[in-house]
Amino acid sequence: MKKQITVLFLLITTFTFAQIDKMEPPFWYEGMSKSEVQVLFYGKNIAKNTVSVSNNVVITNVAKTENPNYIFVTIETKNVSAQSLKFTFKNGKKSFVKDFEIKKRRENSANRKSFDTSDVMYLLMPDRFANGNDSNDSSPNLQEKANRSLPGGRHGGDIEGIIKNLDYIQELGATAIWSTPLCEDNDKDYSYHTYGQSDVYQIDARYGTNEDYKRLAAEMHKRDMKLIMDYVTNHWGAEHWMFKDMPTYDWFHQFPGYAQSNYRMSTQFDSNASKRDAKYCMDGWFVPSMPDLNQSNPLVLNYLIQNAIWWIEYADLDGFRVDTYSYNDKDSIAKWTKAIIDEYPFFNIVAEVWMHDQAQISYWQKNSPIGKIQSYNSFCPSVMDFTLHDAFGNVFNENNAGWNEGVIKFYDNFTNDFLYANPSNLLVFLENHDTGRFNEIYKNDFKTYQLGMTLLATTRGIPQIYYGSEIGMAGDKGKGDADIRQDFPGGWKGDSNNAFSSLGRTSVQKQYFDFSKKLLNWRKNKEVIHTGKLTHYIPENNVYVYFRHNDTESVMIILNNSLGHQKVNLNRFQENIKNYTSGSDILSSKTIDLKEELSIEGKTSLILELK
Amino acid sequence: MKKQITVLFLLITTFTFAQIDKMEPPFWYEGMSKSEVQVLFYGKNIAKNTVSVSNNVVITNVAKTENPNYIFVTIETKNVSAQSLKFTFKNGKKSFVKDFEIKKRRENSANRKSFDTSDVMYLLMPDRFANGNDSNDSSPNLQEKANRSLPGGRHGGDIEGIIKNLDYIQELGATAIWSTPLCEDNDKDYSYHTYGQSDVYQIDARYGTNEDYKRLAAEMHKRDMKLIMDYVTNHWGAEHWMFKDMPTYDWFHQFPGYAQSNYRMSTQFDSNASKRDAKYCMDGWFVPSMPDLNQSNPLVLNYLIQNAIWWIEYADLDGFRVDTYSYNDKDSIAKWTKAIIDEYPFFNIVAEVWMHDQAQISYWQKNSPIGKIQSYNSFCPSVMDFTLHDAFGNVFNENNAGWNEGVIKFYDNFTNDFLYANPSNLLVFLENHDTGRFNEIYKNDFKTYQLGMTLLATTRGIPQIYYGSEIGMAGDKGKGDADIRQDFPGGWKGDSNNAFSSLGRTSVQKQYFDFSKKLLNWRKNKEVIHTGKLTHYIPENNVYVYFRHNDTESVMIILNNSLGHQKVNLNRFQENIKNYTSGSDILSSKTIDLKEELSIEGKTSLILELK
Repeated sequence: MKKQITVLFLLITTFTFAQIDKMEPPFWYEGMSKSEVQVLFYGKNIAKNTVSVSNNVVITNVAKTENPNYIFVTIETKNVSAQSLKFTFKNGKKSFVKDFEIKKRRENSANRKSFDTSDVMYLLMPDRFANGNDSNDSSPNLQEKANRSLPGGRHGGDIEGIIKNLDYIQELGATAIWSTPLCEDNDKDYSYHTYGQSDVYQIDARYGTNEDYKRLAAEMHKRDMKLIMDYVTNHWGAEHWMFKDMPTYDWFHQFPGYAQSNYRMSTQFDSNASKRDAKYCMDGWFVPSMPDLNQSNPLVLNYLIQNAIWWIEYADLDGFRVDTYSYNDKDSIAKWTKAIIDEYPFFNIVAEVWMHDQAQISYWQKNSPIGKIQSYNSFCPSVMDFTLHDAFGNVFNENNAGWNEGVIKFYDNFTNDFLYANPSNLLVFLENHDTGRFNEIYKNDFKTYQLGMTLLATTRGIPQIYYGSEIGMAGDKGKGDADIRQDFPGGWKGDSNNAFSSLGRTSVQKQYFDFSKKLLNWRKNKEVIHTGKLTHYIPENNVYVYFRHNDTESVMIILNNSLGHQKVNLNRFQENIKNYTSGSDILSSKTIDLKEELSIEGKTSLILELK
Repeated sequence: MKKQITVLFLLITTFTFAQIDKMEPPFWYEGMSKSEVQVLFYGKNIAKNTVSVSNNVVITNVAKTENPNYIFVTIETKNVSAQSLKFTFKNGKKSFVKDFEIKKRRENSANRKSFDTSDVMYLLMPDRFANGNDSNDSSPNLQEKANRSLPGGRHGGDIEGIIKNLDYIQELGATAIWSTPLCEDNDKDYSYHTYGQSDVYQIDARYGTNEDYKRLAAEMHKRDMKLIMDYVTNHWGAEHWMFKDMPTYDWFHQFPGYAQSNYRMSTQFDSNASKRDAKYCMDGWFVPSMPDLNQSNPLVLNYLIQNAIWWIEYADLDGFRVDTYSYNDKDSIAKWTKAIIDEYPFFNIVAEVWMHDQAQISYWQKNSPIGKIQSYNSFCPSVMDFTLHDAFGNVFNENNAGWNEGVIKFYDNFTNDFLYANPSNLLVFLENHDTGRFNEIYKNDFKTYQLGMTLLATTRGIPQIYYGSEIGMAGDKGKGDADIRQDFPGGWKGDSNNAFSSLGRTSVQKQYFDFSKKLLNWRKNKEVIHTGKLTHYIPENNVYVYFRHNDTESVMIILNNSLGHQKVNLNRFQENIKNYTSGSDILSSKTIDLKEELSIEGKTSLILELK
């Protein structure tokens, strides 16, 4: 009986005083290019109210759905300066008020710069990088508690851990951080990857607070570094509050029973594909714990657009990486992307398009000539060079180059650059958090690491590195994802090995770090690498030679992937060597004569600044 | 002394009476769309003459080169009806006359039809197919003599052999013949492949005469069959008379020393390629015995255009296959192709573009969206589906399909059809004269042959088969080209096995032939296969299901590439099964119910005409 009374009391309380459980976005900004903002109010039977707003602000639309707990109110903010507005909800004689703030934007926010070819992106998983704050390892409101002994459990890494190690990342020579998602993921287990989010306006308490995230960006900006958010448009987690009480039946893609994506993304453009296969690819769920968002519902699409813009403004972001980009409804994701680019013309967004064919990857890049075949434009400025990644996965094991083996695979990858609208805006990477680790594939062979990083740091595009590889970390995808996402040594109190500190590194870690640091810091100010033209030559004897050049500088890169010493006849490169007579190797600091012939040891590279 | 006198006598004779050793084209046709014809006259010091022409015909240009033995005279033939013209050559008081005939064209010659998706193309090598005429096996004027005991020697096959076996080819169900080149190749050895031609206006005497070739076309047309000439624009043989006395130094691509092509055709569009690599690909020689033609010289280009048109008119051809298309100077080959298409708007030309990426192959097809990226249009209507060929080479050995194995490779090939301007005008083939033989790769497994041929005969495009495979011939490319180009059994007098005749076939040969005949003859009148839409479904369990359909018909093809029996749930195909309730298998003539589920044995296929 006592319990029943309590429940009744709570219900009455809710109805009378806490009519609004959620208001999203929680506030907005003045002077946005898209000046209408659609505010979602969530509360028991809230749709039974009429709604008005203060300060002569105009409501342009009120949308109600089949679920009375939602109301979507659109206001026009053009010429509305920063101020606090009041929304009044009325149902008969009862009424209540909710404050909604319009805030000032940062100066020149719309024209913010973003990541580009001058950057090196450091990809980390926050749960696995560094635990800066022991007290938030678990949260009373979140289901999964810290358990570092579980490979797939939560290990306690957090935003504070990233902030504390920004000097380390900066010293390494990385200039941007892509952290995997940080918004709340309240799954019962396996939540550490955080791609199944339960609240996209809230940083997961186990990583810190929204304020902490904002502070991370500010700390990075102090160091001239850039923060890239991992945005997930395709799905949320099954613990998302809106999945538990759906605004509309079609907020998520619904099937009779559970329907999984077939993951065959080619169905999105294949003129021979059956409609059914295309639908299942796009609308099927990635996994049962990730309800697939229906962005063709304008309310959903707008929610996602506003959420993304809100984070850019709130946290002062420098870019997005978008998860599973090509699994989205392709027209809706283009609208989402365009909305962001319209608001921030210089903002860079890199889409995960995990395909194995350059034409298919190109399809998803802004102004793609391939997309154009079907009058499609995603508006997404950057895509990931997964075909180069494919090559990285086996080239260095191919010591004896046949017609299609060895470094020719790099060469072949770049021969298709003409299929891209902008090959410079491709993310290039040896590996990421979903793939086998490079140092595992090549059995921690340091020479191979040097070859791989040399190419990565000197080819066209934006290099992305994956936390830990710079100190030689390995990890076997075959053993499961947790193995490629191990804790960074030194990120936890009591770690016996602290690779964040120069003194704490083992000699092997030091060897990896020192090389990486030298290479990346050299790249940092090397404009010819950022924006110079790439000219490459057909590999001979498993040696790949290419140049990055502009009117004033030229860098010659020679990658010998064969086991043995090679003599390279230089006559072939006259077109690029021109009147240069020597080259200074940035790795060894040796000067190399550019006479008839050049000698290079097996499995080594030269990066020659031509003189 | 006697010898010297003879030589002197011969020289005088040449100068006085035989001033013209060659006139090319040997005659021309009235009413051509491009009405100017440039006639090449070749003779000792012929350029020292002035030239005029009879019958009020206008000479629009006389071109002389650094070699006085050549003169190129262009006349305007517009409004010049069929008649015999006289060219008069004058040098001081000496003059001589050469007749040049303008002939009538066949009726509606310009609008001749060509090969298309309703055809099945039979590729044969004339030296290896059938020896219809023993007396021309060797020729006194040609260096290489017949020697059937040499695998790479001349075996004596000829045009007469093809004519004698047209009934066989027709019975099989093929409707077109692509014979490898038949023009004279006077190489000392290895001339049987005939890609190193020494006279492109002359059928090789060991194959027959020009008249024989014309007769072959006529005999084929009687049977409603089509003759496709294998045209070589990229190179001639080193024994070509114009290589021995070059009209201009730049008639062929010249380098200091011998320069071989690097065969990396991607240099032709790769925006990162060095100019040197692109030049060596395009201008380097294929092999030392094949001087590379410089089509950027307008005289060369025009010579090749006129020669091609001459053959179409003379022999009444139905199409071209163009050798090494993508090794040509790409702008010049586009001009060559356009000139032919302009003259014969419905003529089909299939280019050999041996690349391994659909975008790269598409580049070379007329109106390609990929070529368009670089404002390139080859004007060539058809290209070869080499990526499908790549798939044919290993799919059937992949019995346990992983994510990227087995029939998914077929599926993946067709997913990129949107990259082609016209996927229907792709030549599809299991093999050709340059590749491993299908029956060798699959160890003469008849079930595999059936699977391969089923796909070939029912997918989009124009199927091409390779002589002998229809009776189970194998041959190992690893042992050299001769092994994949063995003599067709029964083509030579005294052959113990005569597979041309039903009674002469072994039981194994009969099995292959009967199956092929049934399949190809069914295809012959099956318009839905020729022009119906292709809709395919993501393979499951190594079973590939696709439909060819139009408004009135639908054919469902099921290919089970797994070793075991498979049950196929039909609900997935509702989009295509529609209201059809059963399917009649054209191979077994059995009727199959289209209820919930369909059963199919391992390594078999069904071709169901839906009812």
